[in-house]
Amino acid sequence: MKLIHDPIHGHIELDDFALKLVDTPQFQRLRRITQLGLAYLAYPSARHTRFEHSLGTFYIARVLASHNGSMEEGVEYAALLHDIGHYPFSHTLEAIYPRHEDNTRRILAEGEIRDVIEERYSLGEFLKLLKHPAVSGDIDADRMDYLVRDAYYTGVGYGVVDLERLIRNLIYDGRSLLIGQKGIMAAQSLLLARSMMYPTVYQHHVSRIASAMLVKAVELEGIPYEEIRFMDEVDLIARLRESEREEVRELVRAVDDRKLYKRVLYSREELGRLEELRALLEDEFGHLALLDYPPKPKFEERNAHVEGGGRLSEVSPLVRALVELKDTHWRWGVYAREDVVERVRECLEL
Amino acid sequence: MKLIHDPIHGHIELDDFALKLVDTPQFQRLRRITQLGLAYLAYPSARHTRFEHSLGTFYIARVLASHNGSMEEGVEYAALLHDIGHYPFSHTLEAIYPRHEDNTRRILAEGEIRDVIEERYSLGEFLKLLKHPAVSGDIDADRMDYLVRDAYYTGVGYGVVDLERLIRNLIYDGRSLLIGQKGIMAAQSLLLARSMMYPTVYQHHVSRIASAMLVKAVELEGIPYEEIRFMDEVDLIARLRESEREEVRELVRAVDDRKLYKRVLYSREELGRLEELRALLEDEFGHLALLDYPPKPKFEERNAHVEGGGRLSEVSPLVRALVELKDTHWRWGVYAREDVVERVRECLEL
Amino acid sequence: MKLIHDPIHGHIELDDFALKLVDTPQFQRLRRITQLGLAYLAYPSARHTRFEHSLGTFYIARVLASHNGSMEEGVEYAALLHDIGHYPFSHTLEAIYPRHEDNTRRILAEGEIRDVIEERYSLGEFLKLLKHPAVSGDIDADRMDYLVRDAYYTGVGYGVVDLERLIRNLIYDGRSLLIGQKGIMAAQSLLLARSMMYPTVYQHHVSRIASAMLVKAVELEGIPYEEIRFMDEVDLIARLRESEREEVRELVRAVDDRKLYKRVLYSREELGRLEELRALLEDEFGHLALLDYPPKPKFEERNAHVEGGGRLSEVSPLVRALVELKDTHWRWGVYAREDVVERVRECLEL
Amino acid sequence: MKLIHDPIHGHIELDDFALKLVDTPQFQRLRRITQLGLAYLAYPSARHTRFEHSLGTFYIARVLASHNGSMEEGVEYAALLHDIGHYPFSHTLEAIYPRHEDNTRRILAEGEIRDVIEERYSLGEFLKLLKHPAVSGDIDADRMDYLVRDAYYTGVGYGVVDLERLIRNLIYDGRSLLIGQKGIMAAQSLLLARSMMYPTVYQHHVSRIASAMLVKAVELEGIPYEEIRFMDEVDLIARLRESEREEVRELVRAVDDRKLYKRVLYSREELGRLEELRALLEDEFGHLALLDYPPKPKFEERNAHVEGGGRLSEVSPLVRALVELKDTHWRWGVYAREDVVERVRECLEL
Repeated sequence: MKLIHDPIHGHIELDDFALKLVDTPQFQRLRRITQLGLAYLAYPSARHTRFEHSLGTFYIARVLASHNGSMEEGVEYAALLHDIGHYPFSHTLEAIYPRHEDNTRRILAEGEIRDVIEERYSLGEFLKLLKHPAVSGDIDADRMDYLVRDAYYTGVGYGVVDLERLIRNLIYDGRSLLIGQKGIMAAQSLLLARSMMYPTVYQHHVSRIASAMLVKAVELEGIPYEEIRFMDEVDLIARLRESEREEVRELVRAVDDRKLYKRVLYSREELGRLEELRALLEDEFGHLALLDYPPKPKFEERNAHVEGGGRLSEVSPLVRALVELKDTHWRWGVYAREDVVERVRECLEL
Repeated sequence: MKLIHDPIHGHIELDDFALKLVDTPQFQRLRRITQLGLAYLAYPSARHTRFEHSLGTFYIARVLASHNGSMEEGVEYAALLHDIGHYPFSHTLEAIYPRHEDNTRRILAEGEIRDVIEERYSLGEFLKLLKHPAVSGDIDADRMDYLVRDAYYTGVGYGVVDLERLIRNLIYDGRSLLIGQKGIMAAQSLLLARSMMYPTVYQHHVSRIASAMLVKAVELEGIPYEEIRFMDEVDLIARLRESEREEVRELVRAVDDRKLYKRVLYSREELGRLEELRALLEDEFGHLALLDYPPKPKFEERNAHVEGGGRLSEVSPLVRALVELKDTHWRWGVYAREDVVERVRECLEL
Repeated sequence: MKLIHDPIHGHIELDDFALKLVDTPQFQRLRRITQLGLAYLAYPSARHTRFEHSLGTFYIARVLASHNGSMEEGVEYAALLHDIGHYPFSHTLEAIYPRHEDNTRRILAEGEIRDVIEERYSLGEFLKLLKHPAVSGDIDADRMDYLVRDAYYTGVGYGVVDLERLIRNLIYDGRSLLIGQKGIMAAQSLLLARSMMYPTVYQHHVSRIASAMLVKAVELEGIPYEEIRFMDEVDLIARLRESEREEVRELVRAVDDRKLYKRVLYSREELGRLEELRALLEDEFGHLALLDYPPKPKFEERNAHVEGGGRLSEVSPLVRALVELKDTHWRWGVYAREDVVERVRECLEL
Repeated sequence: MKLIHDPIHGHIELDDFALKLVDTPQFQRLRRITQLGLAYLAYPSARHTRFEHSLGTFYIARVLASHNGSMEEGVEYAALLHDIGHYPFSHTLEAIYPRHEDNTRRILAEGEIRDVIEERYSLGEFLKLLKHPAVSGDIDADRMDYLVRDAYYTGVGYGVVDLERLIRNLIYDGRSLLIGQKGIMAAQSLLLARSMMYPTVYQHHVSRIASAMLVKAVELEGIPYEEIRFMDEVDLIARLRESEREEVRELVRAVDDRKLYKRVLYSREELGRLEELRALLEDEFGHLALLDYPPKPKFEERNAHVEGGGRLSEVSPLVRALVELKDTHWRWGVYAREDVVERVRECLEL
């Protein structure tokens, strides 16, 4: 039994099996994968990593299991490992590589971590647990941890959620986690927190611009999926710094020095001919002008089932309102190096 | 210069004039007026008083003044004294007495506190400052303090507001406090906090039932306005405990012992013939059945002006949604002593 | 099962039996007994009561019991009720009445609360639990709760203790709570916290002067033990305000208005002829000059046993140092109404 | 004017000149220098960097300047840049390279950052400010920031200091910062915090073992001072991973995977023939056994001057006690790879 200090949950107890999983190189790699990617360029203190978040998710899943006798055995270990496939800078590179969930499944099937898992589970059985509603459902241990944690490390107050009340009022019925009547207010606060974090933190323009630049550098460097999927942030940044392509070195230096591209365009109108614009920019400006077109937010929490029947969005008018507003802060953008901003503007006929 | 520890703002500095105001018996009385009335029957830790809240309001007003050169001199002292007219248990007794704001104006015109005020201001001038937008506007020092403070003392997380960002982004244009563009998100979080606090804390049914019982006791005791307006909570409770009327003594004992009436009815349908129902209950059950029909919430913050033009509800779809939902948690109720619940139910044909 | 919000422990679960105990008038009285007596005259926000503290002590005792299988059944209920005999303003009046522990034992043997206890325990058996090391030992649930709680409500940072680590590392060996090796640092931090809280909060001179004034008022009023022991703060203050003796009314008004006596003398030299001085002051000045001679601090925690043998003060040089310093901040004082300060000074030949 | 979120100080305002300094590559490099080096192997959440700490030191220095009219102009900018010369993993590598303070002075004399400085100061003048008592004195902005910040990120409660009270009570007399009478208790709490942090965080054995391994790797790799002094953590780790020496690659992999050496010896007895032992271990075991002999702690704060005369250790018996105890937790150690532990033990005749 090992006790780990955690600013969010106080202390996290690791049993022997959890400790063995944590002690694999695959899990230790998560120490070098920042939770919020390049958000630290906007929130300097947001330096927390997938490692702490994974421990926190494990902690919440175990509490859920202890309150719900019928929960499948092993859910907390699946929670612990659910993010093991993240690439350097977390979601940033998912724009150009397979979803990290796919990589998670592959990593678990390899090497030392697979050996440890198979001491207690068959691999197939374990992989199934990754889809358990307590691990990745509409309301799950993952998002309960990250919202609170991200708020703590960025220092914004928006992620405050009555976490304990929510966790205590999630009821597992063998198929999904139902929100108990006394947990509805706390579940609403989770959605509110998320709706505030979305524009202020997760989609902060500084972070998005830097991410677009990093994505372009990786693209130009042409790192194959089979390499990137094992890398940590040291590997990736070192590789880009030593690239043979000058554009790559320039881009990564600009990110390092926080000399970021400027916004030429920031719009909430959906764009029809996306690829056309992307091609135009690439042809005209190469790596000097970037199109950033993120997916719209999903708000899966609205679909969470409520004790007594119905979905959260059905029983809560506030949640319905948030769902209607969910695209309010969505924007796509075009960013360019300062010296070509004017030319890009002209080219886009702005 | 005196420094007062405050869990919300860290330390509050009192200059000599503020200290003189604080040292009057009228201000010291606020130490014995609970901020949230009987809410401590639902949230035991909610024992904070109008005294701390008044200091906190003073603090915020002074920060606002220091950021806004054109703010009228003395606004912080008006903020300090804005609640001096509260009755025992704060808003509870406003159901049967004049609004506390009226009492504030009368108290300031009397005795030691008036003398202190008139060392620096004419009374008329000072009373005008009570209506200053920084003291009682759509977004003001008062509500910025109480939301955060009430959340801290109840221990619910809902009142977390990015207070510093909001305060720094309020711009005084000589007529109102405008919300600067960079403060809109923080202002939204203020409204969100309030919309979460409303059902969970401010309208918690335990607090409402106890309040209805206390109001009835005071009514039966027939305490004149000219007496209640100087009382603190010791005076009031002692008076009720020693009442000559048995019903009064019974009601206050029940509140003391938290043997509260039960809800017979809790409804969100507006009621047409309010006075008729009240009379019926009174005739049939006397002090044993109580009608509680609170005013609907107002959400004045939606009207706050935004830098660049428009009201907060105009620029923020989220605020509009909250305004539409503002009555969702409003309820009126009928409460009765446990042994007559059935009879009341029958009488109301439920 | 009932869940109570608590800013210190998050949420406190009350089982049915605990709830029954809490719902007695004897326990509800604790809502009207301030935890830190008149300390709120120095720390306005220190308005928490024995009620919350008792719930918190219950919570910690239950955690201790859950970690230590051999703990006697019922310890948590003894923890819940351990402070039920406190007088108004907590320790303040113990200067002139029997220790509150005696009153606790008497109150538990009477009325409704006795009936509830005897549903599960014999009275004798239950009273024995009050002396259990987890309830009142060298390191116990009581002091673990109050240090952290008092720091939270006063807003000083000194009471921060790694509470969770300490609790997890207390081992019950059937006779005492041993501090486990991994808990020693946390136990030290408890003592450090206390050594910082002692001069800044517990012995703050404002609180001590006001307490001396209140004690004198109660003494003059001559309230018999058989009355005071049932009173709450409303009863006491109301009684003093309506006293037939002018001095009593004057003293309580001065406390209410915070027009406190001044320090004539504040000394760390022990005084030989205590009663002589007391008599002299009383003869010469009556209620206008007060002698305040508190007991020296005890630091029982130093005697806590450590896993593997020895006492905390034996294994920790820091604790030994704190023990040696424990009287550093001890002071006795003479306080007098402002207008007689000079005369008292002369009389004491200062 | 730019506002940066900071979990410790709320929001930190950067004026234009500060922003220019922050926007240099030299300052941005600090984002990639962890504040506590390898402590995150013991406290996973301790991922904060010299960047945030530098901003926080700037913030405190500015507050000090605003309270002390006679403070030299520019002190806050010196505070901002005081750590710019840190090597990767902060103090870790100072065992084998010049003190980081020397590197700070050299870096400030070069490149873009020098240009910015010289817009307002002569270089000599500015370098002198680095030795200002508010920047690096017995009690200074630097240590006030890091103690509180390190406690926040590790999640231990020991670093809680009444920072605001301390800062407000530091008086600059033109030569040193005096601790005002009302700040003595807060200054004591700073020392207490440090004395608790020293063994639990700063000298945590996990962090020390990993640091000894990293130092050995760097030593074996033979990186010249002229290279290391510009490196960030990406540069260093990448370089070690790609080393031509197998021992170096092995060591860095072990640190990455947290497969740490074991303690063969951990002693508080001072060692006479240090170099002899070091040579013996090196001869016999090469990189497989490491001697770690840290300097003793200094506790400079004890020398801080107190308002009215004297040093802190003279007026505070608690501080004297802490000084006497300061070496209690000091240890030196020998660590070895698991498979040679027994052989090392024998060689040392343990």
